[in-house]
Order: sequence, then C-alpha cells, then structure tokens
Amino acid sequence: MALIVQKFGGSSVADAERVMNVANIVANTYRDGNDVIVVVSAQGDTTDDLIAKAEEINPKHSRREMDQLLSAGEQISISLLAMALEKLRIPVISLLGWQAGFKTNSQYTIARIKKIDVDRVNSELDKNKVIVVAGFQGLNKYDDITTLGRGGSDTSAVALAAALHADKCQIFTDVEGVYTADPRKVKNAYKLKEITYDEMLELATLGAQVLNNRSVEMAKKYHVELEVLSSLNPIPGTMVKEVTKMEKMLIRGVTKDSNVARLSVLRLEDKPGIAFNLFSKLAAKKINVDIILQSSGRRGTKDITFTVAEDNAELARDCIMECFPEIEEENVIVDKSIAKVSIVGAGMETHPGTASRMFDALYSAGINIEMISTSEIKISVLVDQEMADRAVSAVHAEFFPEGREY
Amino acid sequence: MALIVQKFGGSSVADAERVMNVANIVANTYRDGNDVIVVVSAQGDTTDDLIAKAEEINPKHSRREMDQLLSAGEQISISLLAMALEKLRIPVISLLGWQAGFKTNSQYTIARIKKIDVDRVNSELDKNKVIVVAGFQGLNKYDDITTLGRGGSDTSAVALAAALHADKCQIFTDVEGVYTADPRKVKNAYKLKEITYDEMLELATLGAQVLNNRSVEMAKKYHVELEVLSSLNPIPGTMVKEVTKMEKMLIRGVTKDSNVARLSVLRLEDKPGIAFNLFSKLAAKKINVDIILQSSGRRGTKDITFTVAEDNAELARDCIMECFPEIEEENVIVDKSIAKVSIVGAGMETHPGTASRMFDALYSAGINIEMISTSEIKISVLVDQEMADRAVSAVHAEFFPEGREY
Repeated sequence: MALIVQKFGGSSVADAERVMNVANIVANTYRDGNDVIVVVSAQGDTTDDLIAKAEEINPKHSRREMDQLLSAGEQISISLLAMALEKLRIPVISLLGWQAGFKTNSQYTIARIKKIDVDRVNSELDKNKVIVVAGFQGLNKYDDITTLGRGGSDTSAVALAAALHADKCQIFTDVEGVYTADPRKVKNAYKLKEITYDEMLELATLGAQVLNNRSVEMAKKYHVELEVLSSLNPIPGTMVKEVTKMEKMLIRGVTKDSNVARLSVLRLEDKPGIAFNLFSKLAAKKINVDIILQSSGRRGTKDITFTVAEDNAELARDCIMECFPEIEEENVIVDKSIAKVSIVGAGMETHPGTASRMFDALYSAGINIEMISTSEIKISVLVDQEMADRAVSAVHAEFFPEGREY
Repeated sequence: MALIVQKFGGSSVADAERVMNVANIVANTYRDGNDVIVVVSAQGDTTDDLIAKAEEINPKHSRREMDQLLSAGEQISISLLAMALEKLRIPVISLLGWQAGFKTNSQYTIARIKKIDVDRVNSELDKNKVIVVAGFQGLNKYDDITTLGRGGSDTSAVALAAALHADKCQIFTDVEGVYTADPRKVKNAYKLKEITYDEMLELATLGAQVLNNRSVEMAKKYHVELEVLSSLNPIPGTMVKEVTKMEKMLIRGVTKDSNVARLSVLRLEDKPGIAFNLFSKLAAKKINVDIILQSSGRRGTKDITFTVAEDNAELARDCIMECFPEIEEENVIVDKSIAKVSIVGAGMETHPGTASRMFDALYSAGINIEMISTSEIKISVLVDQEMADRAVSAVHAEFFPEGREY
C-alpha cells in the first residue's frame, strides 16, 4: 500500500465523460489498496470564461477579487469529481485549498505556498477516504483566498505530496509522458522511462510544455518522485527523479522553441559599462535575456546581440532606444524569424564531443547555426525558424538512431 | 448615517450590465454616507447550470458535495460585484459565507444559521469598506460548506442585519414592492407603503412570490425592518415592519394560488379515528394539508375533503389508498381545476363583516365558492381555476375602489 497523489489538469475534467474517466483511474488506484489524494484544476475553459467576465466588468479589478473569483473554478471541478467517485461507490470527500490546509503568502494571483496544515487531510485519510483537493488555491494570513498562478495545480500536487511524504506524485496530462522530441513533429520520438529533475527543468524551460517549472523545482527540493502520464491511456509514463542508479543517457531530448526574437544593437561606442547598463535595464523590466553575443565592430565600436522571448521583443527594443538615445534606428535590428533548438542531457557533462555531433548533424542537413549557447546539461542553437523542425529531426536522428531501445 | 443591508437576487446580477446597475445602487447608498453590506445570490441561471452538471454525473450525489458545488455560484457573483464597485472607486471587499462568519448546522442543502461571527465584517466596516457577502451559504462545525436552501440569500441578508443591528434590510427584486394584488393581472393594483410581518407571511404563503417566508419570520423575530423594492427602478418600495403606529388597513392584499388540488374521500365508515389516521399519514409524508372539510354522508358514512399543493396530489391519493384499502376507486376524487383566492389583512380581526363583503363580491360576479377557510388575518376561498382571475379582480375592486389613496 502506498500513498499516491494524482493530479489532473483542466482538459482531463472538461466534461462529464472525462470526469467519469478520471474517477475510474482514481477508483482503480484506490481499489489496488493505495491511499489516494487527487488534485484537480478547473474544468476546461472555466478559468478563461471567468477571466472574460471580470474583464467585461472591470479590466482594472484588484487581484484579491480575481483570486476570489477564479478559485470558484476548482470548487466546481472537485465537487463534480467527488460525485463521480460516489457513483463508483468510493468513499470520498472534496476539499477546497483552504480546507486542505494550504497557507500562502499574500501575493494575490501569484501566491507562494508557505506551508500545508495536513491535519484535515490526514484525518480524512484515516477514514479511508479518497480526498479530492482543489489545486491552484490557498489562503493567506488574512483568511483571504489566493491563487498560485500559472501551473499552480502542479505545484499544489507536488507540495501536498512533499508535506505528506507521499510515495509518488502522478501528473496526468494529455501526453503519455516525456518524449525525446515532440512526437507530433519527429518520427521515432521515444517516450522516456526516466529523466532527472535537472533535465526536466531544462526541457520545461525549453518549451516541452509537460510540467510546470516551479513544481519540478519543488519536487527536486523535497525529493518527490514525479510521474508524467496520460489520463486517456493510463499506461506507465515517464518518471522524474534523482539520477542515482538511473542509467545516464547521453542526451534526454531535443526541443524547439519558436517564441524567440533576436535583437542586435550595432556600432555602439566601445566603452565600459555599456552592456551592463542595457542588461540591468532589461532586468528591471522583467525581460529575461537568454543568449548574449558581443563582438567588436568597426573603428572602436562594438555590436551586442541577444535573444528574448518573442512577446518581449518590442519592450526590449524600447529599452534599447531609452538606453542609447543617440543611436540611429537602422542600427537596432529585431529578428523574429528564428527558433531555438536544444539538446538536454545530464550525460553530456562527461562527453565533450556532444556539441560537435549536434553541429555536424545540422551541417549535414544544410542548416546554418546563427548563435550558440551551452550549459552543463544543454546545448542550444539558433536557426532560421523555417528550418527548425528539420533541425530537430536531424539532431534527433543523430542521437536517437532507429532500432535501439531508450 | 445608517447601517444598511442590501440584498440582490440572481436576476439582478445576471450579466455585466446588471452587475454594474447593482453597483451603482450600492455606490449611491454608500456615497449618501451609509455603511453598506450587500448580500448577493448566484448569477441568473448559474445554480441551475451547476445542478444540471451534477445530475449528469451522478443524480445520487451526496448533499455535502452539492453544497460544495453550489456555493461556487455566489463566489462568482460577489467577486464580480466587488470588481464593479472597484470600477466606481468604492472601497470594497467580497466575503464568502464562511469569511463573513455564517455558522450553520450540518443539514446540507437546507442548513439553518446558528450564529454569525461578525468580527471580520465589523473590522471591514471599520475600514469604511462596502462588504459584498455571498448569500445562501455558511460553514458547519466540520468546516464544511453548507447552503441554506430555497430563498437562502434573503435569509442570509436578514440574519446579517439582525446580527449587526442594521437600521434596515433592503430586499431588491424585479417588482417595485408588495402590491394589493398581482399588478400584471389586476387593474388598479396598488403598491403598499407598509405591511406587517404577519400579513407578509400570509401573503408569501399564499403565492405572492416576493419574499421568502423564513426570512420574514426571522425579520419578525429580530425586529429587522425590511424594505422590498426594485433593482431596476430603485424608488421607495414597501416597508415590512411591526404595526405599532402604522394605520391599520382593513385588508392588505388579494392573492391567487393555482397550485392547489382538492381530494375527496366519499362514503367512509363513520368511526372515530378515521380522519386522524389519514392526516397523520399525510403528515408523515410531509404533505401539507390546507383546508379540511368533513361531512356526514349517507347511511352512517362520512365524506372527507381536503386540499394539498397540486404537486402533492398523486402522493396524497396514494396515502388515501393505503389508509383505506377497501375503498372503491370511484370514491376517491382528485380535482386539480381549482384555485385558492385569499384576502389578507391584520385589520379584519376587528371587522367581522369582512368575510361577507368578500363573499358578496364573488356572488355579484357570478363566482361560486367551493370551500372556505379563515384565520385571524386571512380569508381564503376555493373557486374554479378558470374563474380565479375574475374572482381576484372582483374582490380587489370591492376592497380597493378606484380613486382612493392606499
């Protein structure tokens, strides 16, 4: 018998049929003799619908009232799921975030969990009940409802698993696990059996939209074993856990991120502090800068090139113009027609040849590399956006040749 | 400066436009220098939609989960109304039932308020905030959410007004007040300036669907002055309060109730206990019996005739058959083509001629009276359903002749 936390996202409980499907998964886990806690998000489009209602009435609403509003979404999904489990004759109780003891700080709409008082949850577990908990929400010290922001239900599930020392936290999604590349795009993309927290973090950041970063960080910190699996086909998925005995694969996956823009500032006067000035301004505006390249230009000038998320491109351009008021507009270039292709794997730390294998694969496919950035467990290259899918396939074929087991 | 509790029903906050309309009423009351607490129901069809979702998944859901589900409805409406008030630059905070301190017993879906801890409400009032409270909901001793059943938001508003010793509790509806008869049916129906609690109770019971009975009873018990008025045209409505200096009107209104069925049991053996047996059985099945008539039949038999709500007619017939297994079916008659027309008024206690004025008016209009029942402040007659509207008009014209002020 184990204590298992299962988390289902909004699309998994979007309508009555899917709610019954989730109830069956939960019921089977319970009937196998496990203690089960289920964390659910709001149904399908509920959150978007509620946001639209708020916007219609007052786009400048307070964030406190927004959280009061949005938390109604999970309230609906937990009670419906509890009713579905009642139908299957499973003893069950639904708990709102505050009933399940989630205490947060008071940063409405992006609150952080401070602690979880697990008394109520434990006493319901003692009664052999399945507990359906509203994800995404908690209570601050003023007894006001808060929400945890994007991916909040993942975080709720992992935090609860950590607080209860659960044996496993299963994150059910609409994919069957974590793949070596996007299976809709890359022939022969393989589902991984295992992956480390660090690799998962890099993959999440790089656009593999399976798990929310905060929840992976928390799982790593509290040693919570995660499993990513499908609610539509609940076969074993991908385990996210510490390496230890795991066979280290050279690389774990290939990703593409098209939400990238490259900005170049040409012919800046070459004096100290110029770059610092610009990047501190970008940081102040919460614009994350990814790859940076600085090179000498003509006659004592220098060029700075960097990438940001495409959504932030115009904001970043404004920053540049503020920073260098004398610059001519033609010397500021914004290029949105690029994409970032990355390989991630803890194994590459000990295999220095990994980068050149990647570059060779791209060269052989006739794809030009425009910029490069590396960390201990990842290598990213910028390529023309139109070439990106081909680039992913070429790199994937190099590291995951057909006919082998992964 | 006064402390005013204002209650708005679901249709008053059905969409963004109506929410803004309510916000304006509240804002005006606040700007006039009053402390304002607003109690709202769920928007328009929200409750029905949530019930439909529950029925689809599991018609035999627990009542505990139903309350968890339904209470999401007011959560949505209070935060939207708070946002609307923020737009009008009114300091405001929304509170769920439990945040506002509503403690109830554990009768899910029909919970009774046990007490209200007003600390939070008072501290928000001290900050000069308008408080928007979710009606219809509370918390039981297990920290689980309960709901108060039909008309629950009226009850929430009156209970809060009582607990805070508010100066007035305004119930906003889609009519402008309490009328001497249904203004859609009766020409010259007058809006009453005032009415006593007892008269209001009789009118509510008799089908004038303005105020929920429980809330009127509570208002009477705790001396809460009620005002019934329109959210679409917020001119002074009808005050519901204790008589004292109020000028006693002979009668306060004429009502019609078509949800009536008459059952007759003929040729029962005339022995003691027969009627008791039947009526205790009906009571056990929670069937309210209204008018009862017992008469001697032929050759040592007797006939019993009584009325029940039309919805209960078949259930009542089953009761009769169980009670008197030997009875022939032709001796049990169910008549649904009748209606009850009533006059209500505290003044009639001291005016014995009131009944005969009513009967004369009906007689002059050619309407046959089939049964009669009276109490201190009301007189009801059964008439043919097709005659009922004419009966109301005739009686109304007798007691409220045109050209006078009421």
